[in-house]
Amino acid sequence: MEQRIKGIAASGGIAIAKAFRLEHPDLQTEKATVADTEAETARLDRAIDASREDLKAIRERTSEQLSESEADIFSAHLLVLDDPELIGPVKEKIRSEQVNAEHALKQTADGFVALFESMDNEYMKERAADVRDVTKRILAHLLGVTLQSPSMIREQTVIIAEDLTPSDTVQLNPEYVRGFVTDIGGRTSHSAILARTLEIPAVVGSRSAMAQIKNGATVIVDGTSGEVIVSPSDDTLKSYEEKQAAFAEEQTRLTRLVNEPTLSKDGHRVELAGNIGSPADVAKVLENGGEGIGLFRTEFLYMGRDQFPTEDEQFEAYKSVLEQMEGRPTIVRTLDIGGDKELPYLDLPDEANPFLGIRAIRLCLQEEDMFRVQLRALLRASVHGHLKIMFPMIATLDEFRRAKTVFLDEKEKLEQSGVPVSDKIELGMMVEIPSAALMADQFAKEVDFFSIGTNDLIQYTMAADRMNEQLSYLYQPFSPAVLRLIKMVIDAAHREGKHAGMCGEMAGDEAAIPVLLGMGLDEFSMSASSILKARAKIAGLSKAKMEAKIDHILSLSSGEEVRSYIEQSL
Amino acid sequence: MEQRIKGIAASGGIAIAKAFRLEHPDLQTEKATVADTEAETARLDRAIDASREDLKAIRERTSEQLSESEADIFSAHLLVLDDPELIGPVKEKIRSEQVNAEHALKQTADGFVALFESMDNEYMKERAADVRDVTKRILAHLLGVTLQSPSMIREQTVIIAEDLTPSDTVQLNPEYVRGFVTDIGGRTSHSAILARTLEIPAVVGSRSAMAQIKNGATVIVDGTSGEVIVSPSDDTLKSYEEKQAAFAEEQTRLTRLVNEPTLSKDGHRVELAGNIGSPADVAKVLENGGEGIGLFRTEFLYMGRDQFPTEDEQFEAYKSVLEQMEGRPTIVRTLDIGGDKELPYLDLPDEANPFLGIRAIRLCLQEEDMFRVQLRALLRASVHGHLKIMFPMIATLDEFRRAKTVFLDEKEKLEQSGVPVSDKIELGMMVEIPSAALMADQFAKEVDFFSIGTNDLIQYTMAADRMNEQLSYLYQPFSPAVLRLIKMVIDAAHREGKHAGMCGEMAGDEAAIPVLLGMGLDEFSMSASSILKARAKIAGLSKAKMEAKIDHILSLSSGEEVRSYIEQSL
Repeated sequence: MEQRIKGIAASGGIAIAKAFRLEHPDLQTEKATVADTEAETARLDRAIDASREDLKAIRERTSEQLSESEADIFSAHLLVLDDPELIGPVKEKIRSEQVNAEHALKQTADGFVALFESMDNEYMKERAADVRDVTKRILAHLLGVTLQSPSMIREQTVIIAEDLTPSDTVQLNPEYVRGFVTDIGGRTSHSAILARTLEIPAVVGSRSAMAQIKNGATVIVDGTSGEVIVSPSDDTLKSYEEKQAAFAEEQTRLTRLVNEPTLSKDGHRVELAGNIGSPADVAKVLENGGEGIGLFRTEFLYMGRDQFPTEDEQFEAYKSVLEQMEGRPTIVRTLDIGGDKELPYLDLPDEANPFLGIRAIRLCLQEEDMFRVQLRALLRASVHGHLKIMFPMIATLDEFRRAKTVFLDEKEKLEQSGVPVSDKIELGMMVEIPSAALMADQFAKEVDFFSIGTNDLIQYTMAADRMNEQLSYLYQPFSPAVLRLIKMVIDAAHREGKHAGMCGEMAGDEAAIPVLLGMGLDEFSMSASSILKARAKIAGLSKAKMEAKIDHILSLSSGEEVRSYIEQSL
Repeated sequence: MEQRIKGIAASGGIAIAKAFRLEHPDLQTEKATVADTEAETARLDRAIDASREDLKAIRERTSEQLSESEADIFSAHLLVLDDPELIGPVKEKIRSEQVNAEHALKQTADGFVALFESMDNEYMKERAADVRDVTKRILAHLLGVTLQSPSMIREQTVIIAEDLTPSDTVQLNPEYVRGFVTDIGGRTSHSAILARTLEIPAVVGSRSAMAQIKNGATVIVDGTSGEVIVSPSDDTLKSYEEKQAAFAEEQTRLTRLVNEPTLSKDGHRVELAGNIGSPADVAKVLENGGEGIGLFRTEFLYMGRDQFPTEDEQFEAYKSVLEQMEGRPTIVRTLDIGGDKELPYLDLPDEANPFLGIRAIRLCLQEEDMFRVQLRALLRASVHGHLKIMFPMIATLDEFRRAKTVFLDEKEKLEQSGVPVSDKIELGMMVEIPSAALMADQFAKEVDFFSIGTNDLIQYTMAADRMNEQLSYLYQPFSPAVLRLIKMVIDAAHREGKHAGMCGEMAGDEAAIPVLLGMGLDEFSMSASSILKARAKIAGLSKAKMEAKIDHILSLSSGEEVRSYIEQSL
């Protein structure tokens, strides 16, 4: 009999296939005494070696099928595997307590996981997840059981799982895995984000999928509405097949827009750009018709490693992006680290409120040497394309001026030593702190462009941690307070003849696009997979009509009112 | 020979007296084996009992000489002293390891302190300080040494110390202690704040006072400039005696303003009010000529105890404040707890960014029962004076409306059961979140008054944790971005015929008063000791002249420019 489960819509589209339950094998360990501790240590080493082979293979596949930034998860796992601080104590425990490797590993790893999780720090919590993931893998080898590997799936399936670990998700092959449903997780969980990148329909946080769905049952996943239908009736099946066909048709229609300019119904042109995390992501942006890069997050160069990237490593990455973009505008954001994003080789003090702490430009101005290396690499790469550099987390004019001074200093030094440097590099800033938006009129006189970072701007304007689920009612992109700030920024830019872009999630939100278009936003930067939908959306909108509604929208009293007014008036 | 040490000016005025070095005795413990563990446990109990007597005496003295809220520190210490989770393990250690009480206590306490300090949480860090303070006291009794007690000082002295513990500071008797100098601490450290309350000149963070100043040396403390002069020459001494006399004269002049209204040179009237933490603080506000209470922080009722205060306990506190104020306007802020301020009996989840977390009204709307108790107590007390209620951390109109609905619901219920309730209670809000300031035009239609909370408003506008010393360059009250928000709030209030006040530290800052007056702020609420200085300051200012400068001030590009423009133009 047909059964319906409601979860959180995590990635749009409709999948229809047989259920494949991804169950983790029983990795229960028993304590046992061993006489030959040397043999036991050797057994552990073999399990580690086998795990290393697994991880290398997965990493390679991931970097080919997805991108370097997704493959980084496995680089992190490999580091854990070779971390003497973890493996040392395990071996010590085997020797001193004469216990089996499984028990020694489990006990030691549990200690680390508990310690990392108790720290009030997202970075350490991710490390806990890594240790848990790696331990599972070694244990499986020790116990001689096989970890189910989603990459081995060779038939059309919908995966049902309690949760997908990072290693599970990156192994999903969209050719076979048509969709997935998990019991836990939210719209911004790692697996949800990846599902959107892979364009696999997904429903997360269903609570009861594992309890209710049997292997082989026919499952419909509606990743747009968040509905999961198990053993659908013929009628239901038919109606969803139609929906699926319509969705596919829509996709085809969108594909035709790849090489079209982005024009509103009344002929107003804007730029649609992509957000990327590494040079490997450029291809996807171009395939989806991106007209530029609106945000290249450079953190990937710094994370998942044990020392700073060299100037040359950085240069190669920037050059690769610029070359692939073939002269299209490419905005590179300087390092946005600190706060909750830590680097193992950079000792930062613990902070009580990392989101209000020493991050991004604040850190770069403190660690000027590190900042100079990045700027030099960017300057050297600038001759390979249309480079625009932006500084994150600018709060005061003084900060922008100081960053610009460092930039000009490095530029001059390179020029003096004969290194070719472009003279057309534009210098801009993220507007993601209320003070920057409030002072946009002054900033507009000194910067070449703005890029509004809505994720942080909303969080600070509402004083609500955007990762805190209990405060999601305050994290409102449509709040008139936020919209008023955005309007200030766009108006200030235009008064000085400058460009205002946006690279926060809001820029790709189809419900927000009409308002942003009406306010005169020049550039919308989003994940590659949203670009074509945005282009189609804009093609159906009149800029003049939206513009006429802005005053009314800004006079409404809540985000809900704004949202429903937009819905009704379109 | 005369010697000068420069520190941080923590509390104004000049003190001249002999140095009294407050040194903590050597409380080094040695591990020793004891045969009779029962006798050892009894010895520990005696030391605990003696410490309890100490603490009770200190608490009583503090509550008489200062206030209940300062005495709370010692209530917290008494709780630590009787905490079985601390003392239990100590006794267990004595018995199981057959060690002396000193060693067992030290080891156990160090463990707790390390644990509490490792937590990324201000509340737990304060608990660590409490445990350290109490342990010291018990150890002193065990070792038979005497802790120097500042309350025993019976001659005119300037105290020199590495740092002052909370217990040290509350014991300072201003009759004998003329001033103090510490090596560590900042302007907002506990001891600095208390020095201002007690009106004792103080210099903190001198780094080298303990190293350079001998017992009995003559010391001049200039708490206004931050300078400390040791063994002054006759000329220096004479010049500082003159300064001291001038300071005293100024104080007398100020005292004459106690019963005067607050008028600018051109006859514009504003209201000067006091911020209080408990009913005991009202007297000081009235003595200093406060025309109202601009902020009654009700947290003291909830903190330092192990269960919620009852409705009657709260009623008594509110009634006491209202009665003492004899009809003057009295703004009570509803509970501002959560985030970094925890209650031991209210289980709140750990948050990655407590300042962006579930605090204040957010928590009250979640824990509605707790909120209703407070509102009922306030409603019942309303007939005893001129009550104004304000909600903290309002970000959206919806939150204000929800809080108002709960209030009206309780009001109606009380009226129906025949309880007398004032019909003139005003309902207002703190403006301390950028979104509230940005939406002030809308809020002004629904609230009875605004009170701008600059401490948080600055922090969120600049996205800089105000407790993070490394970001103090961003914590700028004079930032044009902050001033623009303040202006928005005042203008919005006036357009609707409402009152705009301010209860953040900025309201009592003599450098800020001219700008706030010029922008039209109606009410300035500050610590009692600042009121008369503010009145004198305002008397010397022309409101019209300041008003004419506001547009120019808001067009400046940094807090420094604003500050120097104000200084020059006065």
